[in-house]
Order: sequence, then structure tokens, then C-alpha cells
Amino acid sequence: MNTSAPHTDFSEASIRTIAVVGLGLLGGSVAKAVRGQSGDAAVRVIGCARRAETREFAVKHGFVDDVTDDPVEAAAQADLVLIATPVDRIADYVINIAAKCPQVLMTDVGSTKFRIVEAVKAAPEAAARFVAAHPIAGSEKTGLQHACGDLFQDKPIVITASGDESPGAIEAVTRFWESTGGRVVHLTPRRHDDLLAISSHMPHLMSSLVANQLPGEAIPMVGTGWLDTTRIAAGDEGLWTAIVSENRDAILSALEQTAGNLGDLIDVIRSRDDESLTGFLREAREKREAARPTRLPTP
Amino acid sequence: MNTSAPHTDFSEASIRTIAVVGLGLLGGSVAKAVRGQSGDAAVRVIGCARRAETREFAVKHGFVDDVTDDPVEAAAQADLVLIATPVDRIADYVINIAAKCPQVLMTDVGSTKFRIVEAVKAAPEAAARFVAAHPIAGSEKTGLQHACGDLFQDKPIVITASGDESPGAIEAVTRFWESTGGRVVHLTPRRHDDLLAISSHMPHLMSSLVANQLPGEAIPMVGTGWLDTTRIAAGDEGLWTAIVSENRDAILSALEQTAGNLGDLIDVIRSRDDESLTGFLREAREKREAARPTRLPTP
Repeated sequence: MNTSAPHTDFSEASIRTIAVVGLGLLGGSVAKAVRGQSGDAAVRVIGCARRAETREFAVKHGFVDDVTDDPVEAAAQADLVLIATPVDRIADYVINIAAKCPQVLMTDVGSTKFRIVEAVKAAPEAAARFVAAHPIAGSEKTGLQHACGDLFQDKPIVITASGDESPGAIEAVTRFWESTGGRVVHLTPRRHDDLLAISSHMPHLMSSLVANQLPGEAIPMVGTGWLDTTRIAAGDEGLWTAIVSENRDAILSALEQTAGNLGDLIDVIRSRDDESLTGFLREAREKREAARPTRLPTP
Repeated sequence: MNTSAPHTDFSEASIRTIAVVGLGLLGGSVAKAVRGQSGDAAVRVIGCARRAETREFAVKHGFVDDVTDDPVEAAAQADLVLIATPVDRIADYVINIAAKCPQVLMTDVGSTKFRIVEAVKAAPEAAARFVAAHPIAGSEKTGLQHACGDLFQDKPIVITASGDESPGAIEAVTRFWESTGGRVVHLTPRRHDDLLAISSHMPHLMSSLVANQLPGEAIPMVGTGWLDTTRIAAGDEGLWTAIVSENRDAILSALEQTAGNLGDLIDVIRSRDDESLTGFLREAREKREAARPTRLPTP
């Protein structure tokens, strides 16, 4: 691999060693997915975490071959660096690592993309080797203890190219993500954020609203409907505050659309327009059934 | 058992035969739960369904001992009749059966209670032997093919007495529901409907709103968060239109509260008040965790 950054050509890049910066649910699951492969696909994994307990857990449970608390030390040994930290720290890691390791390819797992890609564009030597990605996997659970090697199996992985990537970089990172078992989809960063605001960020906030409205007296009476609808409300509030901050405008636009639709629904119910209500419920059922994972095309 | 209705005393009532009117998910699951019991608790079950295919399926798969398409014929052989039809038909069945079978005890599975209990009160001979109930079990699935004998295990069963029941009736019906494996809770019909509007009916409608807002382009990208949040939106639109119709005022009041809370949330996000946003998300997470089924008291 040559080192004439930012003009490195990644067309022939072979990814034998990866560094995972941030050993949480997503970082740990990628590590397990690629380290577990046999034969030629086998990958060496260097984990990077700030907490000593996380590093010990990662080694003990076979997530990584080696660990460090220094992202640059990890990146210096790797062909590919995966940044798997909360969204508000990803761009800084990418820029710092690019400055110190001019040969390395980088990708990430952030749930928002536009602001990260824009921030990295300001550093051309970083933008040339960073291919932004968002694996749509995970749940309300966080932490390495919930990580597993098949988390990405048949899950959508959105790659959001900036246009500034070196030749071959997008293809190499696409092959890497496909090796985790996911199905790669390509979108612009802006389109990704607009769609995710509606398919993930707004639903998360609505789930929290529904959970918050429950009076204590009703707690012993919740059924599977309430439990399903509020499951993601159990997610970490720090991670989600950062996501809202990174994708504020698109989330506001999605929530305002929801507020308008809710107003219309209230009018339909108040005016006893049962035909419209049935139509609204039918449309929602059909939409839900169209999106069932069993009906998704498999790779 | 004496027949001097409406003054029958059910204190010593022994429930050896039940009639289940409506063989769907809930009726079928009750049938399976009580018929499967061994020894003294064993119960003979007569099923009543309009469709011949449903009656054949019920016999073939061991849900019932016998079937008929005539609710009165089924009730005439029973100690207890369970009305397991959509909510808008329950009160009529209770009143008709009471008029023709003056000895029989009755209960139901309706998700709304106030209007059913009020309608039955108009017929004192029916009100004396009807103990309204709502087992909080089931999901987006409907139909006998999804019924199972352990559907009610550890699930809340709300009994909403009218005050007009004959002596011993509430106790006998409570014992019956406990025999399905559920945990009986007592509430007034009005309080039940107000709480369920918040814990079940409003969440169902919000789930449908979230599902409806998804653009077709985002269908291949939905994750487990969207799938969990919208699971109940796959429910039957006819059943849910009837539920909204039976509990319209409480549902409107819950939805208006949600609309107000959504407006507040939009203001918090627009004003970049991340501290309030984190507080809102934390409260929702704590509420969700407090209501997790694993933390419910077991019977």
C-alpha cells in the first residue's frame, strides 16, 4: 500500500488488520463478525477503549486480538479503522487519525451522516480516506456485553459517500461492510439524514413520548402493545441527545409532520368519521406489512 | 344451581362447562387454557363461531369439545359464557343470552368496558350475571390460528364490576380468570377505559401514525427500532375502529395530551435546550424500565 496521501489508490487494498475505536455494541459486533471469519477472510482486530474494564472484557471474550487506549497507536497497525463512538466525536477522531496515519482507510457507524461528512471535508487528507457508513442494527441495548457477531446479518448498511474519497476507497469499504453480513445501500449524506429522521429518530422520540405519558397506576397493566411501542425509549439518553443535535433540522421537520398528522387524526376521531379512521389504520397496517423484515430482499 | 334470576347466588358456583362465543385469538386461547387443565380443574368447552371453517379448525386442533353456530344453544349447556367478539357486539350478546338462559354466568374479553357495562345495566337480569373483564394479552395477530393456552400466563386481567352483580358472581369469575394463568386486577369501568386509553389505545394510534409517515424509499432501511415501534400498527383496522368508537372521549383526551407534549418537545429541540431533552429522554427510559414485565410482581 503506498503512502502518497491524499492520492492513495485503494483499488487493490487488502484489509487484514482493523482497528476498532470505541468498543460498544456496534464496535464490538463488527469486531466479532470479521474476526470470526475463517481462511482468507480472517481479520486481525485491535480494539481501542478508554476504560480498562472494557479492554479486559474485549480480550477475555475474544472480540479482539489486542487492545490499547490510544486510537493512533491502534490505527498505525491497521489497514482500516472503524470509528464506533457516539456521533458527536466521530469527525474529530477521523481528522486526528488521518493526520497521523496517512495510509489508513476509515469508516464509521454513526446514525447521522451529513454533519460528520461536512466536518471531515474540511480536512482533505481525511476526506480522501474516510467512507462514512451507518449500519442500521442494534436496539435499545448498549455496551460490549450485548455485542454479537451476527448483529449485521441481512441488516441495511448505508454508505454515504462525500465525493472526496480516493479511488477504490468506497469499493474497499463496501466489501468490508458486506463481509459483516449486511446489505450495503448507497445514499447521499443529506438524503440519509432526512430518511433516518423519519424512519428512526422521530420514531424514537415518539416512543419516549408514549412512555412518558404512562401514569404510575397503569404500570402493572401494560400489555405487549405498550412494551413493543416503547422498547426503544429504553435507549441511552446521552447517545440520543447527540443524535438530535447532529440532525436537528430534519428531526424537527419530521416531528412537525407528525404533529400535523396527529392533529388530523384527532379531527377524524372527534368528528366520528369512522370510514376515514379505518382507512388511516388500514394504510398503516399495509405500510407495516410492506416493511416486515421477512419481505426484504435478501442479499 | 337455581334459576330464580336475577337473584341467583354464585358463591358455590362450580364451572364445569364453558361456552366461548367468538373463536378468535382471545376466545381460542381461553378455551385452550382451561380445557388443557387436568383433574378437578378440567373444563368442557363448547365453541360458537359463525364460520364453518373456524368451527372445523377449533375441533381439529383441540380447542373445544363441541361446536355450534348458535350462541344460545352453546350458552344453554354452560355454567359460564365467555363473549369473545369485537367490542361493539358484546353487550348485545350478553343481553340476548341472559334473556334466554337465566342461570348462566357471563364474562367477556373486551378492550373497552364503560359502554359495555352501561349497556348491560339497562337489562337487570343480564347485569346480575355479567362480570366484565379485559385480559391484557394478545398482539397485532388475530385469529384462532394464533391462539395458545399460555397466552394469559402472568398477564393482567382487569375485572370491572358494575355493582349490579349477584352475590358470588365476581368471585366465581375471578377464580375462572385466575385459572387461565392471569393476574386479576379490579378497577371501575370508567377508570379502566381512562387508563387503557393511555396505555394501549393512544399508543396504538401513535404506532399507526409513525408507520404511515414512512416514505416508500425508506422501506428497505427500517431497523428494529421502527419495527418494534410500529408492530401493533399491523393490527386489524376493523377491531381498532370499534375500540376507538367505544372509548372515544378518553382516547381524544389522551391524544390531546400527546399533542401538547409533542409541541413542548418540538420547542425544546428547536431552542437547542439539550439539558431538557436529555431529561425528557431519561424520564422515558426510567418509565420504560419500571414497566418491564420482568419487574412485575408475579402471582
